[in-house]
Order: sequence, then structure tokens, then C-alpha cells
Amino acid sequence: MNIILASSSKSRSRVLAAAGVPFTVVPSTIDETILKDTLLRQHTPLDKIAGALADAKALSVSQAHPKALVLGGDQTLLFDGELVSKSQDIAAARVLLARLRGKEHRLIGGLTLAHDNKILWRHGESAELWMRHFSDAFLERYLKTEGTSILSAVGCYKLEGLGVQLFHRITGDYFSILGLPLLPLLAELRKQGVIPK
Amino acid sequence: MNIILASSSKSRSRVLAAAGVPFTVVPSTIDETILKDTLLRQHTPLDKIAGALADAKALSVSQAHPKALVLGGDQTLLFDGELVSKSQDIAAARVLLARLRGKEHRLIGGLTLAHDNKILWRHGESAELWMRHFSDAFLERYLKTEGTSILSAVGCYKLEGLGVQLFHRITGDYFSILGLPLLPLLAELRKQGVIPK
Repeated sequence: MNIILASSSKSRSRVLAAAGVPFTVVPSTIDETILKDTLLRQHTPLDKIAGALADAKALSVSQAHPKALVLGGDQTLLFDGELVSKSQDIAAARVLLARLRGKEHRLIGGLTLAHDNKILWRHGESAELWMRHFSDAFLERYLKTEGTSILSAVGCYKLEGLGVQLFHRITGDYFSILGLPLLPLLAELRKQGVIPK
Repeated sequence: MNIILASSSKSRSRVLAAAGVPFTVVPSTIDETILKDTLLRQHTPLDKIAGALADAKALSVSQAHPKALVLGGDQTLLFDGELVSKSQDIAAARVLLARLRGKEHRLIGGLTLAHDNKILWRHGESAELWMRHFSDAFLERYLKTEGTSILSAVGCYKLEGLGVQLFHRITGDYFSILGLPLLPLLAELRKQGVIPK
């Protein structure tokens, strides 16, 4: 059975490829913004949104590829009781990072495996991250060095790069923070017989 | 003040470079095997060996470069009450991995910053890792795919690669497992004024 990653996230692809898992990428075409708004209007608890989006992505790609094992993933950022949306440009990233500075936020990850339009497996995981009181000069240098590459991450940082300098404490699984809780996923892929035991 | 990494570990270099820290590499020339044997004969507790080796590496390079901030690092593997040494070839790696299979081991990391032949800062951290009951066929495929590159790590695995498939559970900081507890180090480098706040 082939594995399809229903995500255009470069970070997820990198983690999965580095672990030696064979897969192809077929990004889901669902409109995440509309779905997220619908979930919020239905008073879905904020910590369940990532899982619901992972389900939707996996199922939407499974419809077109029913014979494959489809992996959907999503990650949300919770801060101050609110769901933070992706920043559209560097100006918005600057505003977000200045808000997160000196405070704690939470990353919630959802992973879903689907096959033949049915959900086979779900996994949820969260991590807490504390940003330090970095200077305005640091923030400007950070934005200039990293550029628009940070906009692909909801928190506007990549821990595999300069982003790690924004933090003074991180708890939770590193792979989950990158968007792909790898150990539970590998265990399930072995159970499904798609990678060797 | 320039930062010197007193280690030839590619993993440490990669982590530090990815975080945007400027540094040069000057590997220490101390004989680790002799020093380790001496420490063991002196009944140094096993969980203190990594810290003592990190001290020795930092101080040895600091002697030749007294004006630089010298970072020494070491990592030891504790299993079944013993200190495990690096494997010299694939045959030894096979024996070690078969011993670790299905069991827990501990990685202990030591980091030391030295300046002008004096130790400025020390940090110790440990992680617990549980290897799964992988098959003999998996082990052979792993050794063939990874080749001699795994011999640079005391446990004969790199979590950034296929090595992650050896595990079913890992606790502890990811950067520490790679050999460089990054967040405490970055905090100290800011305190020393060598990277921007």
C-alpha cells in the first residue's frame, strides 16, 4: 500500500523523508479557512480544530486515492485563549511575534490516517513554548534573515533554524513541533504493514 | 569574543550553525580513551564522565586560544549499569544494537564553556530512549542503508535519519540527544554577550 502525504508542508515532508518512509505528496484542496470558520461557528473546542482539519485533509485526498494510505496533518497555535491564524506577510509576522514575546503559547498537532474514505487512526499532541524577551533589534534582524520563509509556519518560526533563538523554554516532542509526531506515526505505519518491522 | 567549538562532531556543528551562531571548529587533541579510563579507575560516577570530558576538551583548546570562548561537549551512553564505548566497525554496531533492542538506555550530555583556561559555565542533561523489538531483517537493512556514518554516534544511530525507526519512546530534549542542549547554551551565550539579545 502506497503512502500519500496530504499536505504541502515542507517541514512534514522533510521529517518523513529523513525517517526513511517512502511516500508521495498530494496536497488536499479543501479550503482550510472556510472549514476552520465553520468549526469555530459550531463551537468546536479550540484544541480539537487541528484534529478536525487533519481528518478533513486525509479524507479529501482519500476520496481520489482510495487504495492509498493517506496521511493528513494540521497544526494550530493557541495563545491567550485564541486560535492564531497564519501571518500573510512580514508586517503581520512582526505583530504576532511581538505579541508572543515573553509569553507562553501552545502548538496543537493532529495527524490522521485514512484509507478507502475511512479514518483508520488519529493522533493528537501538544507542546508548550515560551518565547523570551528578545529585543526589538533581534526581532528585526530575525525577520530580515529569515524572510518570507517563516510565513509557512503558524508561529512564524522554524526550530530547525534561527527561530530557536526566540525561545527560552520548550516542552513537548520536537517532531510534533515540526508538525509530525513521528514515533506514534511510525508505530502505526508498522502496524499497518507499510514499513518494515 | 569568538566562539570555538572544541569538537569534531558533525551533529554539534550542524545544530549550532542552524541556530545562527557564528563559530569556528578546533577539535581538542586530548586522548578521550585514556582520560575516560583514568576517570573510571578513579571511580568517577558514570553520570559524571560526560561532564568531565567536556571540561577537558574545553580547557585543552582554551590553552591554545585563551581569548576565545571555547565550547566543549561530550555525550556518553549508559546501559545496564555500564558505560558503552563507541563501536569501531559495523560488526560491533550490530552487536550493540542487538543488545539495546527492546530495552531502555540513557544518553548523558555535558557542555562546558571555557575562557582563558578557566571554566565559565557547565550544563548537564540526560535523555532516556527505549528501543523497540525490531526484526533482524530490519537491523540488517538499517546497517546496510546507514553504513559507517552511524559509527560517529556512541549509540550507532542518528535521530535525524533512519535511526528514529529504532525507537518506540524517547523522553528528554531533542537537541541534547543530538549532542548539544541548545536552549541553555543560547541563554548562556546571550549572557556572555557573544550573540545578540
